This record gives sequence, structure tokens and C-alpha cells, in this order.
Amino acid sequence: MKKDIGAKTLLFPTPVLVVATYDSKWNPNAMTAAWGGICCSTPPCVTISLRKATYSYNSLMERRVYTVNIPGKEHAREADYFGIASGRDENKFAVAGLTPVKSDFIDAPYIDEFPLNLECKIVHIADLGLHTQFVGEIVNIKADEALLGNDQKPMIEQIMPLMFAPDSRNYYTVGEEIGKAFSIGKSLAGQP
Amino acid sequence: MKKDIGAKTLLFPTPVLVVATYDSKWNPNAMTAAWGGICCSTPPCVTISLRKATYSYNSLMERRVYTVNIPGKEHAREADYFGIASGRDENKFAVAGLTPVKSDFIDAPYIDEFPLNLECKIVHIADLGLHTQFVGEIVNIKADEALLGNDQKPMIEQIMPLMFAPDSRNYYTVGEEIGKAFSIGKSLAGQP
Repeated sequence: MKKDIGAKTLLFPTPVLVVATYDSKWNPNAMTAAWGGICCSTPPCVTISLRKATYSYNSLMERRVYTVNIPGKEHAREADYFGIASGRDENKFAVAGLTPVKSDFIDAPYIDEFPLNLECKIVHIADLGLHTQFVGEIVNIKADEALLGNDQKPMIEQIMPLMFAPDSRNYYTVGEEIGKAFSIGKSLAGQP
Repeated sequence: MKKDIGAKTLLFPTPVLVVATYDSKWNPNAMTAAWGGICCSTPPCVTISLRKATYSYNSLMERRVYTVNIPGKEHAREADYFGIASGRDENKFAVAGLTPVKSDFIDAPYIDEFPLNLECKIVHIADLGLHTQFVGEIVNIKADEALLGNDQKPMIEQIMPLMFAPDSRNYYTVGEEIGKAFSIGKSLAGQP
């Protein structure tokens, strides 16, 4: 039996995306967002949603670029910290002990210690209410060389990314492999 | 060392969202999307991106409503099938052996066997290129009663949702709990 539980932001899984920008004084800053994801294949685009009250919101509006940095589970504490503190009050990179590196494609820093960094130029902005949605075209991705050298193991199993459960507010990482997409459903479609 | 790997749709994790609509003849249809996620807290909104070539695209443009249905890992085969076949050619609900139920909030069906169903009204559309992004306000969520009765276990661990890895094209489910959000980072912030 189904029960109506009202209008909520409940969806599983949501990602843990650390969005990095330079502020108006070229100080690097980063904040964590679970509201976001890939939103177009060609051109490749990723969307992130931020509250207007965040310090990063102003940087995004001013610079129109950002990086999305994917933490592995070993950086859960740092990723969470980036979602708690504000760049208005402290240098979050210094406190977290992480390294901001200027992207060579856009005017935004990426987090060197995180295994995957998406470098994005904003192509669309939508004010949806509490959150403003920024769609960024991914102009390049930086990946740890170690990730690329290991063809034996899928990248997601090497990274062990975080995800966020909106109801319990727990972080999880990835678990069991379930099957191949565009493949395991073929038996239902009457295909071999 | 970081290596530039170009512009790609690479992000971990992406969700497995089964989007259900009625077509122009009121036939229920559903398709699977990994490009999407929550995009606003107030009002609660979820975004999904679809190619214009899909049958569901026309239904979304016509009816301006949809449900997002979250499969548990036991429905991986059905979720994959919904991403392979087209509602132009077959009745996907019948082939998958799943039950479309008319939402009592919107003119869209939800998938009764899936544990969580988000009922959405489109509030924003953005043509981004190959994909069009639809932002839907979540007007209600339906949840399996069994999920709600079990306070001992977080909902995500009861559902064991699917996720999609864009590079390997594998499905995974959720793994180990890593910690509490808005909490484990406090030690870095100098808070107890």
C-alpha cells in the first residue's frame, strides 16, 4: 500500500558535489551541494543548485564559472565541512587542509586532492525559489592519473564516491554492482 | 598528478530515475533517466533531462506533469528495460509486468511496485542541446507503507536504490554508511 507523505526533497541517491569558485578578491572558496547532477550529454552539462544566501552564489553570479569536485569516501569529513562553514567567515581550503589549484580552462580553482574535477562555464541560470539552479557546460574534466591507469577496476569503485540521503542526512558510499545498463533489461524486451 | 580527459558526462553517482507519463491517448509510458536530481528545497523540485527524440518528451511537453519513480535493486532489470525500449513501439508497463496507477494529484501514472513515487508539475523547461531539462515541482510523494513503519532502518537502506556509473555503464546499489551530514565536518570547523 502507498501512503501520501507530502511534498519533500526526497530522492535516492543524491550526489555530494563540492563546488569551487573564486570570490571577488580571487580567494578560493568551496561549498558542498547535494542538489545537482548531469543534465545534458551534448554539450556535456552539469547542474548545481545553491541558495542565494550562500557566499558561493555571489561568486557564481560574478564569475560565471565553477568546478565540481567529486570526493572519495576518505574525504567525507572535508566535504561535510565545506557544507557547514561559510567562505565569508573563513578560508575553508586552509581549514580543510586541501589545495586549490587554478584551472587552466576557467577562472575557478579545483580541489587537487579530490580524484575528479569538472571545469564548467555557466550557460543557464534559473531562479526556482529558495535555490537557484546553475547549469554549467563541462569544458574539461581533470582526473587523477592513478584512476586512469587501472582499467581492471571501474572508476567508481576506485573513487568510492559519497552520496547523501536527504531524509536521514547520512552519507553513504557505493555498494554492490548490480548489472550492465542497456543490457540487463534486454531479456524483458525479448532480445537475447 | 592530474590529467585532462576532455569534456564528458562523468560524475559519480548519478541516480536511476524512472519517469512516467501519459501519452496523447492516455496510454501510460515510462522511461529511465540518469540525468536528474533534486534542484530546489522550497518549493521542492526535481529535474530530469530527456532527449527530444524520446516518446516521453512529447508527453511531457503536452501534459506538463510526470512522476519520478525510484526503483530498488530488485527492479534493476525493469528499470533498464524502461531505458532501452520506446513507448512508441510497445506498452512498456505490460512487458515489464509493472502496474501504472493514475496519480490522484496529477495526470500522470506512477509505478505501484516501486517504493517511492514523486508526483511533479513542470515549472521550468530549458533546451540545453541534445537534452531538454524539465524542472518539476514535487506536489506529493507516495511511499510504500512498509518503508514508513520501519524507523530502525534508514529509508535508503530499505530501498537499496540503483545508481548509474556513466563511464562503465554499470548499475550499483548503495553501500557502507560513512557518517552524518552537517556533523562529521564540525571537528574541522573547530566545533565539538
